[in-house]
Amino acid sequence: MPDRKDAEHLDSIDPLAAYRSEFRIADPDLIYVDGNSLGRLPERTIEAVSRTVAEDWGEGLVRSWHGWIDLPASVGDKIAPLIGASPGEVIVGDSTSVNLYKLAKAALARSPARRTIVCDTGDFPTDIYIMEGIARDSGCRLARIDPDPVHGVAAADIEMACAEYAEDVALVVLSHVNYRSGAVADMHAITHAAHAGGAMMLWDLSHSAGSIEIDLGSSGAELAVGCTYKYLNGGPGAPAYMFVRRETQDSLTQPIWGWFSQQDQFGFAGTYQPATGIRKFLVGTPPILSLVAASEGIVLVSEAGVPALRAKNIALTEMMIAFFDEQMHELGLSLASPRDADKRGSHVSLSHPDAYRICTTLIDRYRVVPDFRAPDVIRLGVPAIYTRFVDAFDAMDRLAALLRAGDHVGSPGERARVT
Amino acid sequence: MPDRKDAEHLDSIDPLAAYRSEFRIADPDLIYVDGNSLGRLPERTIEAVSRTVAEDWGEGLVRSWHGWIDLPASVGDKIAPLIGASPGEVIVGDSTSVNLYKLAKAALARSPARRTIVCDTGDFPTDIYIMEGIARDSGCRLARIDPDPVHGVAAADIEMACAEYAEDVALVVLSHVNYRSGAVADMHAITHAAHAGGAMMLWDLSHSAGSIEIDLGSSGAELAVGCTYKYLNGGPGAPAYMFVRRETQDSLTQPIWGWFSQQDQFGFAGTYQPATGIRKFLVGTPPILSLVAASEGIVLVSEAGVPALRAKNIALTEMMIAFFDEQMHELGLSLASPRDADKRGSHVSLSHPDAYRICTTLIDRYRVVPDFRAPDVIRLGVPAIYTRFVDAFDAMDRLAALLRAGDHVGSPGERARVT
Repeated sequence: MPDRKDAEHLDSIDPLAAYRSEFRIADPDLIYVDGNSLGRLPERTIEAVSRTVAEDWGEGLVRSWHGWIDLPASVGDKIAPLIGASPGEVIVGDSTSVNLYKLAKAALARSPARRTIVCDTGDFPTDIYIMEGIARDSGCRLARIDPDPVHGVAAADIEMACAEYAEDVALVVLSHVNYRSGAVADMHAITHAAHAGGAMMLWDLSHSAGSIEIDLGSSGAELAVGCTYKYLNGGPGAPAYMFVRRETQDSLTQPIWGWFSQQDQFGFAGTYQPATGIRKFLVGTPPILSLVAASEGIVLVSEAGVPALRAKNIALTEMMIAFFDEQMHELGLSLASPRDADKRGSHVSLSHPDAYRICTTLIDRYRVVPDFRAPDVIRLGVPAIYTRFVDAFDAMDRLAALLRAGDHVGSPGERARVT
Repeated sequence: MPDRKDAEHLDSIDPLAAYRSEFRIADPDLIYVDGNSLGRLPERTIEAVSRTVAEDWGEGLVRSWHGWIDLPASVGDKIAPLIGASPGEVIVGDSTSVNLYKLAKAALARSPARRTIVCDTGDFPTDIYIMEGIARDSGCRLARIDPDPVHGVAAADIEMACAEYAEDVALVVLSHVNYRSGAVADMHAITHAAHAGGAMMLWDLSHSAGSIEIDLGSSGAELAVGCTYKYLNGGPGAPAYMFVRRETQDSLTQPIWGWFSQQDQFGFAGTYQPATGIRKFLVGTPPILSLVAASEGIVLVSEAGVPALRAKNIALTEMMIAFFDEQMHELGLSLASPRDADKRGSHVSLSHPDAYRICTTLIDRYRVVPDFRAPDVIRLGVPAIYTRFVDAFDAMDRLAALLRAGDHVGSPGERARVT
């Protein structure tokens, strides 16, 4: 164990098995383990986008804005239950990067006496870059904590940072699930530590929403952002979302005063008056085709249900780690994800000095699409809604075969993966 | 004159007539004079979006980023010739509002000794609101000029503002074509006046690109933004573009440091290093479905050619004004657009105290879709690429009939138009 028969058996009793048919599987022999970079296409999205183009735009023309105008809020309300938020606390628009900027700037402006932002050196680059830009522009300090690369940030790291920059930390910005290791941060304990230090908490849920249970409500966190094109299957570059706790909304002023955040948007007043509620965090006209696609993916994940998805995800990654332990530890690979299932998100990362060429060879010659993350990580994402146990098994099996054959040696490789 | 026969004759000799068949015309009896809010759907866009969804996303999956990653720059290069820019000076991403923010913040940061932004009280609200937000956040002054509402901003207004705030004006922000009156600003003279005052110039081209000739290159302007969903027919909320003159690019640092502007995006370095060239103005992952739609619309406008579109637009609006002069001046309407064709963009605005109810009645009972702009403007946009002379004639004729019948009186009306 594990062998492929076991995987087939697990598929045969998988209560989520039927959801695979909700997705476009164009090439059944291709093992796609990069749905945590770009989720697969839901079949229903084809029809929804097509209808939006041909009917809503083509026939309804500008009159269709009667319906489109509410999409940022209504799609936000569909995301809310997936992340433990309430209606009116989530809204969709702009990219994750722009949303990080808006919320972090707003948080800093609320606490002018505090001039430190705490972030994680191991976080996804855009999360760090955005904070670097804000720090430079506002003369703030960016305090970078440097946690264990496999296990990620702990509450103790935040306590130490808050102690070191006592009374000066305005904001702690972290990802809930690390994009590289898949480590799950303890949202409740870390948020508590940030609050104990007098800081606000901003979570990036890009690698967790739609994949593991999130309870922003009980965590006490004020702010969160996330993308919709990974586990939410919203399509390439689909717009991102923001969460702002209801009690916090009134106290924040976001910095980019676009007309979609104006109280009376079509009053065309010459002076900005921010909307009340979550809509004040919008900026400009949202990309409707991409927003409609996001909506379909989100609804589909809601139908499957996050608890069931999480249970299957744990079974998938446990099987992969068992496979690794039994057959792959001699092949130069190291496990770069937590072993404890409770502390691991929905992907397994393996490190290898030749990871880049291994990834390109997997794609080019082994019909497996993983993700490479510089400098040395092979990332294998197994979104439970469409990934079968045999897919996870085959991904590991083909990777082992590649390494045994040494097929990556001498591969020229070709560059490009986008999260 | 004018009568409908004249309009039919003009259609029969219209060299652009064939372009109408490139667009989805679902209801031939509906007169659509709001393409300057949301342009019509190009037929080719249906296929392009469908292919992007089903093939590029559905089959190519994350591998399609090999092609998508270059779209912001390659679609920007397609816009460049429409606005007198060179390759590498235009890039697509984010909304017009976010782009205004990035470029204005970058301009202010370059001139820290100057703390005044000049804007126009008659400009589109988001242009003003964004600058209000920046002024408040950075402690800058927003100097609002208040030009004639029909004829718009003149170079003399800018000269006066620069004189009043001598040595303090960092940036002048204006729309090339006013969203309400359609007045065309003298781009060259105004840019010259801004430069004479030591300021940088930022143009919003939303109501001019794809409709009238623009020569950013010879104007000397450093910065511009614009949307793609009006005369460029890019679809609802399609991403906007930015122009930054090549010689200016190196001297600017934009404020939102997202990973799409990182020099080596997939190197995943822990410190931001901005890309060289126009790519440094990107932020996060762009909405691909909406970006593909924008690309199709842009190419179609390029095929028709802006000089031919402009010539037809002038003929259309001249006919409408002749109709107004002959048949409508007794009906309580006033012309709210310039009479001089050279100073008028591609729409005609008529003001009336009851404009709102007139617009809703036109839509509900007269099968004409205009735009209402608070408080009193009926805006009739006639994009030359698909608007026939009979359409422009019928729009005026039905409006006249409505007013003669008094059908708007007592209409409850229903609210919502989006530019």
